[in-house]
Amino acid sequence: MRNRNKWHRNKASGKIGRDHHRLALHKPPVGASPGTLVQAGEANAVSIVLTAYSEHELAEQEIDRLEQLRDWMDFKGVVWVDVRGVTDLDALRQIADLFELHPLVLEDIAHVHQRPKLESYPDHLFVVTRIPNVNEGTLTEQVSLLLGNHFIITFQERVGDCFDNVRQRIRTAKGRIRCSGSDYLAYALIDAATDAYFPLLESYADNLDVLENTVMRSAERLPIERLHALKRDLSELRRAIWPQRDMLGMLQRDDSGLIGDDLHTYLRDCQDHSLQLLDIIETCRETAGSLMELYLSSINLRMNETMKVLTMIATIFIPLSFIASVYGMNFDGSNSPFNMPELGWYYGYLAVLLLMLSVFAGFLVFFIRRGWIGGQRRSDQDSG
Amino acid sequence: MRNRNKWHRNKASGKIGRDHHRLALHKPPVGASPGTLVQAGEANAVSIVLTAYSEHELAEQEIDRLEQLRDWMDFKGVVWVDVRGVTDLDALRQIADLFELHPLVLEDIAHVHQRPKLESYPDHLFVVTRIPNVNEGTLTEQVSLLLGNHFIITFQERVGDCFDNVRQRIRTAKGRIRCSGSDYLAYALIDAATDAYFPLLESYADNLDVLENTVMRSAERLPIERLHALKRDLSELRRAIWPQRDMLGMLQRDDSGLIGDDLHTYLRDCQDHSLQLLDIIETCRETAGSLMELYLSSINLRMNETMKVLTMIATIFIPLSFIASVYGMNFDGSNSPFNMPELGWYYGYLAVLLLMLSVFAGFLVFFIRRGWIGGQRRSDQDSG
Amino acid sequence: MRNRNKWHRNKASGKIGRDHHRLALHKPPVGASPGTLVQAGEANAVSIVLTAYSEHELAEQEIDRLEQLRDWMDFKGVVWVDVRGVTDLDALRQIADLFELHPLVLEDIAHVHQRPKLESYPDHLFVVTRIPNVNEGTLTEQVSLLLGNHFIITFQERVGDCFDNVRQRIRTAKGRIRCSGSDYLAYALIDAATDAYFPLLESYADNLDVLENTVMRSAERLPIERLHALKRDLSELRRAIWPQRDMLGMLQRDDSGLIGDDLHTYLRDCQDHSLQLLDIIETCRETAGSLMELYLSSINLRMNETMKVLTMIATIFIPLSFIASVYGMNFDGSNSPFNMPELGWYYGYLAVLLLMLSVFAGFLVFFIRRGWIGGQRRSDQDSG
Amino acid sequence: MRNRNKWHRNKASGKIGRDHHRLALHKPPVGASPGTLVQAGEANAVSIVLTAYSEHELAEQEIDRLEQLRDWMDFKGVVWVDVRGVTDLDALRQIADLFELHPLVLEDIAHVHQRPKLESYPDHLFVVTRIPNVNEGTLTEQVSLLLGNHFIITFQERVGDCFDNVRQRIRTAKGRIRCSGSDYLAYALIDAATDAYFPLLESYADNLDVLENTVMRSAERLPIERLHALKRDLSELRRAIWPQRDMLGMLQRDDSGLIGDDLHTYLRDCQDHSLQLLDIIETCRETAGSLMELYLSSINLRMNETMKVLTMIATIFIPLSFIASVYGMNFDGSNSPFNMPELGWYYGYLAVLLLMLSVFAGFLVFFIRRGWIGGQRRSDQDSG
Amino acid sequence: MRNRNKWHRNKASGKIGRDHHRLALHKPPVGASPGTLVQAGEANAVSIVLTAYSEHELAEQEIDRLEQLRDWMDFKGVVWVDVRGVTDLDALRQIADLFELHPLVLEDIAHVHQRPKLESYPDHLFVVTRIPNVNEGTLTEQVSLLLGNHFIITFQERVGDCFDNVRQRIRTAKGRIRCSGSDYLAYALIDAATDAYFPLLESYADNLDVLENTVMRSAERLPIERLHALKRDLSELRRAIWPQRDMLGMLQRDDSGLIGDDLHTYLRDCQDHSLQLLDIIETCRETAGSLMELYLSSINLRMNETMKVLTMIATIFIPLSFIASVYGMNFDGSNSPFNMPELGWYYGYLAVLLLMLSVFAGFLVFFIRRGWIGGQRRSDQDSG
Repeated sequence: MRNRNKWHRNKASGKIGRDHHRLALHKPPVGASPGTLVQAGEANAVSIVLTAYSEHELAEQEIDRLEQLRDWMDFKGVVWVDVRGVTDLDALRQIADLFELHPLVLEDIAHVHQRPKLESYPDHLFVVTRIPNVNEGTLTEQVSLLLGNHFIITFQERVGDCFDNVRQRIRTAKGRIRCSGSDYLAYALIDAATDAYFPLLESYADNLDVLENTVMRSAERLPIERLHALKRDLSELRRAIWPQRDMLGMLQRDDSGLIGDDLHTYLRDCQDHSLQLLDIIETCRETAGSLMELYLSSINLRMNETMKVLTMIATIFIPLSFIASVYGMNFDGSNSPFNMPELGWYYGYLAVLLLMLSVFAGFLVFFIRRGWIGGQRRSDQDSG
Repeated sequence: MRNRNKWHRNKASGKIGRDHHRLALHKPPVGASPGTLVQAGEANAVSIVLTAYSEHELAEQEIDRLEQLRDWMDFKGVVWVDVRGVTDLDALRQIADLFELHPLVLEDIAHVHQRPKLESYPDHLFVVTRIPNVNEGTLTEQVSLLLGNHFIITFQERVGDCFDNVRQRIRTAKGRIRCSGSDYLAYALIDAATDAYFPLLESYADNLDVLENTVMRSAERLPIERLHALKRDLSELRRAIWPQRDMLGMLQRDDSGLIGDDLHTYLRDCQDHSLQLLDIIETCRETAGSLMELYLSSINLRMNETMKVLTMIATIFIPLSFIASVYGMNFDGSNSPFNMPELGWYYGYLAVLLLMLSVFAGFLVFFIRRGWIGGQRRSDQDSG
Repeated sequence: MRNRNKWHRNKASGKIGRDHHRLALHKPPVGASPGTLVQAGEANAVSIVLTAYSEHELAEQEIDRLEQLRDWMDFKGVVWVDVRGVTDLDALRQIADLFELHPLVLEDIAHVHQRPKLESYPDHLFVVTRIPNVNEGTLTEQVSLLLGNHFIITFQERVGDCFDNVRQRIRTAKGRIRCSGSDYLAYALIDAATDAYFPLLESYADNLDVLENTVMRSAERLPIERLHALKRDLSELRRAIWPQRDMLGMLQRDDSGLIGDDLHTYLRDCQDHSLQLLDIIETCRETAGSLMELYLSSINLRMNETMKVLTMIATIFIPLSFIASVYGMNFDGSNSPFNMPELGWYYGYLAVLLLMLSVFAGFLVFFIRRGWIGGQRRSDQDSG
Repeated sequence: MRNRNKWHRNKASGKIGRDHHRLALHKPPVGASPGTLVQAGEANAVSIVLTAYSEHELAEQEIDRLEQLRDWMDFKGVVWVDVRGVTDLDALRQIADLFELHPLVLEDIAHVHQRPKLESYPDHLFVVTRIPNVNEGTLTEQVSLLLGNHFIITFQERVGDCFDNVRQRIRTAKGRIRCSGSDYLAYALIDAATDAYFPLLESYADNLDVLENTVMRSAERLPIERLHALKRDLSELRRAIWPQRDMLGMLQRDDSGLIGDDLHTYLRDCQDHSLQLLDIIETCRETAGSLMELYLSSINLRMNETMKVLTMIATIFIPLSFIASVYGMNFDGSNSPFNMPELGWYYGYLAVLLLMLSVFAGFLVFFIRRGWIGGQRRSDQDSG
Repeated sequence: MRNRNKWHRNKASGKIGRDHHRLALHKPPVGASPGTLVQAGEANAVSIVLTAYSEHELAEQEIDRLEQLRDWMDFKGVVWVDVRGVTDLDALRQIADLFELHPLVLEDIAHVHQRPKLESYPDHLFVVTRIPNVNEGTLTEQVSLLLGNHFIITFQERVGDCFDNVRQRIRTAKGRIRCSGSDYLAYALIDAATDAYFPLLESYADNLDVLENTVMRSAERLPIERLHALKRDLSELRRAIWPQRDMLGMLQRDDSGLIGDDLHTYLRDCQDHSLQLLDIIETCRETAGSLMELYLSSINLRMNETMKVLTMIATIFIPLSFIASVYGMNFDGSNSPFNMPELGWYYGYLAVLLLMLSVFAGFLVFFIRRGWIGGQRRSDQDSG
C-alpha cells in the first residue's frame, strides 16, 4: 500500500512541470559567471555529521562550527564528512574553501539536477550519484561525493538516506570496511545507492502486476492515468540509472591512483547491479507498452460487442415494428376491396403474428450463423 | 500440449510481479557489506554429486560430507562438483572456503538473478549462464560455473537439468570429452545450456502458429492475453540469451590460460548457436507484433461490417415505418377534404405499398452501388 | 503470376511454425557431443558432380563412388565438387574424412539453418551462404562452401540452384574464370548467390505494388493476410542477407592467403550488391508498414462514412415518425375539446405534412452546413 | 502566459514550410562557386559593437566605419567584435577581408541555417552555435563565433541576445573573465547560449503540464494541434542541441593551442548542461508521445460510453415500441374471434403494460449484470 | 504548383514496383561474369561533351567520334568528358578501353541503381553520386564520376542536369575553378549535386505544409494517399543522401594523392550540407508521422461527434415515440374501465404532451450535464 500511495501522489502533483520549474529556478541567470550559486527558496540549515575511523579508532560527531573540521584534517584514517542540505550557500562556500573545491564542483553540488557522473580533479574525484527518494514530485535525490586520499565528503539534498547500513558496518567493524581506505567507503556508499533502487523497482513491478490483472479482468476499469504516470516514472528512473552505469565503468578505468586495484572486482559487481536494474526497467517498460496495446484492443473488442447487441436488437425489431405499423394504417376498407382487406380476414391477425415470428426466427438464424450468438462459448472451447 | 500448458500457467500466475518480489527478497539489505548472503525462504538441503574422470578412470559419487571433497583435491584428471540447490547458505560458505572463492562470487551464486557473464579471477574463471527451466513463474534457472585448472564446480538452483547427455558422454567415454581437460567440460556444459533453448523456442513458435491460424480464422476468438504473455516471455528469453552471446565472445578472447586454443572453434560454434536463438526470438517477436496489428485491423473491419448491417436495416426500414406511421394518423377526413383523402382512395393502400416497395428498391440499389451488398464476393474474385 | 503463387503457398502452409520444427529436429539432442549428426527424416541419396578445369583442360563427371574423388586430388587446376543433398549422413562423413573436415564444419553442413558466415581453418575457409529457393515453407536454402587451395566443395540442400551460369562460363571459358584459381570460383558462386535475390525481391515489390493499388481503390478488399505474410517473408530475407554482408566484409579482410589480392575489388562489388538488396528490403518494409497505416485509416474513414449515413437517416426520420405517431394516438376528441382537436381541423393534415417537411428541411440544412452532404465533392475540388 | 503565446503563434504561422522556404532562398544557386553569398530579402544595416578589455582596461564602442576596427588590431587584451545582422553582404565581406576569413566561413555566417559545429582554421577557430530566439517561425537563431588569439568576433542574426550577463561581468570585472584570454570569453558566450535553453524548455514543460491536466480532465477538449506543434518544436530543439554537444566535445579535444588547458573543466561542465537539456527534451518527447496515446484511448473509451447509452436506450425502447405497435394494428375483431381479441379483454391494457414493464425490467437486469449500469461506480471503488 | 504536380505524378504511376522492375532488368543474368553489361530497353545515342581548360585556355567541344578524345589526352590542364546517356553499351565499352577502366566500374556506370560510394583504383578514383531528377517513377539519377590526375569523366543517365552553373563558372573563369586541378572540379560537381536537393526538399516541405493546413481545417478531406506517397519519397531521398554523406567523409580521408589538401575544407563544407539535408528529411519524416497521428485522432474525434448526434436524437425521440405508440393502441375502452381510460380523460392529450415535454427536457438536461451540448463552446474558452 505504501508504494501505491507514493506514485498516486506523483500523478496528482503534476510532477514533471514542477520538476522543471525547480530546475530552472536553481540555474544561475543565463550568462552568469561559472560557479555562480543561486539561492532557491529559503535556505535550510545544513547539518553536518563527521565519522572518522581507522582499524582501531572510531569517532562520530555532529559538527556545529566548520572550524571543528580542521581538527580532523590530519587524522590517520578515513574521515567521512556527511553534509545534509545544500540550500545554505554560505555554508557550502565555507566547506568548499576548506577543502579547496573547484567552483564548478560547488555549483554542481548546489544545483541538484545533475546526471550521475565522475569528474577527476588533481587531488580528488568528484562523483555525482542519485539515490531513490520519492518526495514531492521527484523520484530521486542527488548525492554528491568527493573522494580524497583520506577523506570523503558527501552532500545530500535532504536528511534521510539509504546509508544507515554502511554506518552500522563502520560502527560494528563488520566486514573489511574499517581496514580499508576511503576508496572502499566510496564504493560502499555508491553500492548502497545502487541497491536502494531494487525495492523501488519492485514496487513498480507490483503496480504493473495489479494493472495487468485489472486489464485482464475488465479493460474498462483500467486506471489509464496510472499506467501513464508509471511509464513516466520508469523513464525518469532509467535516465537516472543509465549514466550511473557509465560512471561505474569510468571509476573502474580511473587512473588517478585514488581507487585501489582490489576495488575493481567490487566496482564491476556494482556495475552488474546497475545492469540488472536497467533490465528490470526495460522489462517493466515493455510490459507497460504491451499493456497499453492490450487495453486498446480490449476497448475495441468491447465496443464491437456493444455494437453487436445494438445491431441485433435493431435488426430484429425495426422490421417487426414496420409490419405492425403497416397494419396500423387507417385505409378505409369500406370504400375499396383493395384497401387492406387483410384486416378483415378471419385468420388475418394470426397470419401477421406468424409472419413476425418467421422474420424473428430468420434473423436469429442469421445471427447464429454469423457467430454473433452462442459463438462466444464455442470459441472458448476452441482455445481452452 | 505440454508446451501450451507451460505458458498457460505462466499467464495465470502473474509471473512478473512475483519474479521481482523474489529478486528483491534475495538481495541483501541496502548498504550491506558486499558478499553478504541473505536467507530467502527456507533452506533446502544441498545435494552434491562428484564426477571425477581421466582418460582411463571414472568415479561418480554422492557427497554427504564436504570433507569428502578434499580427498579428490589432487586427483589427476578432471573433477566436476555439481551442487544442486543454493539456498543452504552454510553449505555454500563451506564450499567457498574449500575452494577459496571470492565473497562476491558466492553472493552471485546465491542470488540467482544474475545475467550471464564471465568474470576472471586469479586461478579460476567464474561463468554465469542460464538454462531454460519453466517453473513457477520463471522461465530460466541460473547455473553458476567455476572453471579451475583441474576442476569444475557447478551450482544449480534446482535438481533437474539439461546436462544428462554430457554425463552420459563421460560415462561412455564417447567423443573426446574423457581425453580433454576441464575447459572442454565447461564448453560441453555451456553448449548444452545453449542448445536447451531450442526446444523451448520451438514450443513458442508452435504457439504463435496456433495463434496465427486463430486470428486468420476469426479475429474475435483470439485469446489476446496469450499473445501478451508470449511477448513477455520472449522478452525475458531475449534478455537471458543476449548476454550469453557476449559471455561466449569473452570466453574466446580470454587470456587466462585456462581455455585451450583448440576450444576456440567450439566456442565460436556455440556462439553461432546463440545467434541463431536470437534470430528465432526476433522472428517470433516480429510475428507477434504483426499478429497484434492484424488482430486490431480485423476487429476494426468486423466492427465496420456490423455497422453496415445495422445501417442497412435502419436505413431501409426507418423511412418505411415513417410512411406507415403517416397513414396511421387519425385525422378526421369527414370534416375536411384535405384530411388524408388518400385513406379513402380506391387504390390508396396499393399505392402506398408500391411507394414502400420503391423506397426499399431505391435503398437496395444504393447499397449495391456502394459495394455494401454483394461487394464481398466481387472483391474476392479481384484478389483471388 | 508465378511469384504471387509462391507466397500464396507460404501463407497457407503456416511456414514459421513448421520451420522451427524442422530446425529443432535437425539439432542433435541437447548436450550431445559437438559434431554429432542427427538423421532428420529419410536420407535421400547424395548426387555429386565434379568439375575440374585449368586454363586448357576441362572435365565434368558424375561421381558414383567417393573413391573416384581421390583420383582428382592432385589435379593441377581447380576441382569443384558439388554435393547435392545433405541428408545422407554416411556419405557426408566419408567426404569429411576424405577432405579432413572439422566435425563442427560437418555439423554446420548437415544442419541447414546456419546464418551466412565465414570460418577460417588451417588449410581451408568454410563459407556458409544462402540462396533463394522458395520451397515448402522456406524461402532460402543453405549452400555451404569449402575453399581450399586447389579445390572447392559446395553442399546444397536440394538439386536445382542458381549456379548454371557459372557452369556455363567454365564450359565456354568465358571471362577470366578458367584462368583464375579456386578463390575466383568461390567469388563467382557467392556473387551468383547474392544476385539471385534480385528477381525474388522484384516479385515482392510487385506484390506490394498490387496491394498498394488495392488499398488505394478500396481498403476493405485488401487481403490483409497477404500483407502480413509479405512482411514476415521480408523479415526472413533480411535476416538471410544481413549476415551475408558481414561475411563478404570478412572475406575481404581475410589474411589466410587463400583469397588473392585482385579479388578484393570483386568482393567489394558483391558486398555493394548485398547493400542494395538490404536497401530494397528496407524500402519494401517501410512501404508495407505505411500501407498498413493507410489501410487502418481507410477502414476508420469508411466506418465514419457508414456512421454518417446511419446518423442522417435516423436523425431525419425518427423525429418525423414521432410526429406521425402523435397523431396516431386515439384520444377521444368527442369527450373533450382538448383531446387532439388538430385531428378535426380543416387544414390539420396539411399543417402536419408542412411541419414534417420543415423538420426534414431543417435537418438537411444542418447536415449540409456540417459538410456531411455534398462536402465530399467540394473537398475533392480543394485538393485537386 | 508569455510562453504559451509564443508557440501559439508558431502553430498559426505554419512555421515548417516557411522555414525551409527561407533556407532554400538563402542558398546560393545550385552549382555556384563555394563561398558565393546570396542576398535574401532586403539588407538590414549591420550594427557593430566593440568591447575591448584587459585586466585593468575596458572600452566599449559602437563601430560606424569598419576602419575603426583597425585601430584595435594590436590592443593588448581581448577584443570582442559583436556584429548584429548578417544580411548586409557588403559589410560582411569587408569584415571578412579585414580578418582574412575563409570564403566558406563567410558563407556559413551569412546562410543562417547551419548546425552547431567547430571548424579549425590555421589561426582561428570557427564555432557555430544556436541560441533560442522564438521569432516569426523559428525557434533558434544562429550565432557564429570566430575565436582568434586576441580577438573574438560574433555574428548574430538579430539585435537582442542572451549575452547581457556576460557583458555585465566584463564591465564589473566580476569573476575571472577580465583576467582571462579570448578562449575564456568564447566559453562564457557558448555557456550563456547553452543555458539560455533552460527557460525555453521550462515553458515547454509547463505547456505539457497544462495539456496533461487537460487530457486527464476531459480528453475531448485537448487541443491536439498544440500537442502536434509542441512535438515539432521539441524535435527542432533537439536537432539544435544535439550537435552542440558534439561541438563542445570537439572543443575539449581541440589541439590548436587556442584553448587553454584550464578551460577543459569549464567546457566539460558546459557539455554536461547540454546533456541535461537533451535529457529534458527526451522526457518531454516521451511525455508527449504518452499523452497522445492517452488521448486516443480516452477518445475510444468515450465513444464506447456513447455507444452504450445509445444501445441501452434503443435496446429497451425498440421492443417496447414494437409491442405498442402490435396493439395499434386495426384488425377487425368483429369479423373473427382470432383478430386481436386481446383488445377486448377486460384486463387487456393492464396486461400489456405489465408485459412492457417486465421487458423493461429484464433488459435493466441484463445491463446491470453486464456492468453497463452502476459499474462505473464499483470500478472506482476497486481502483480507489 | 510545379512541385505539387511532380509528386502527384509519382503517386499515380505506382513508382516503387516499376522501379524495382527496371533495377532487376538492368542486372546481368544471375551468375554472369562480373562486368557483364546487359542492354536494358533500346540503346539511346550517347552524347559526349568535352570541356578542357587551364588557367588561360578554354575549349568546349561536342565529341562525335571517340578518337577525338585521344587528341586531348596530353592537354596541360583539366579535361572534363561529360557523357550523357549510359544505354549505348558499345560506346561505353570504347570509353572504358580508352581510359582503361575496370570492368566492374563499367558495370556500375551502366547499371544505374548504385548507392553513392567512393572506390579507389590505382590511378583514378571512382565516385558514384546521385542528383535529384524527378522523372517517370524515379526521384534521383545516378551520376558516375571518374577522377584522374588531369581528367574527369562523368556519366549521366539523361541529358539535363544541375551542373550548368559549374560550366558557367568555367567559362567565365569566376572563382578559383580555372586555376585549380581536376580535384577541385570534382568537388564542384559533387557540391552542385548535393545542393540540388535543397529545392526538391523545399517542395516536399511545402507540400507537407499544405497537408498540415488541410488536416487542421478538416481531417476528412486529407488526401491520405499523398501523405503516403510523400513518406515514401522521403525514404527514398534519405537512402540516396545517407551514403552520400559517407562518401564525402571517405573523400576527406582519401590518401591516393588525387585530392589536394586544400580541398578538405571544401569537402567538409559539402558534407555539412549533406547533414543539413538529412536534418530536413528527418524533420519532414517526423512531421509526416505526427500528421498521420493527428489525422487518425481527428477521424476518431469526428466519429465520436457523429455518434453523439445519433445518440442524442435516438435517445430523445425513441422513448417519445414509444409513448405516442402506447396511446395509439386500440384497446376497447367500451368493454372495460381499465382499457386505456386515459384516452377519454378531459385533459388526457395535454397530460401526455406534458409527459413528452418533460421526458424531452430531462434528456436535454442529461446531455448538457454530460457536456455533449454546449460543451464545445466552453472547452474552446478553456483552451483559448
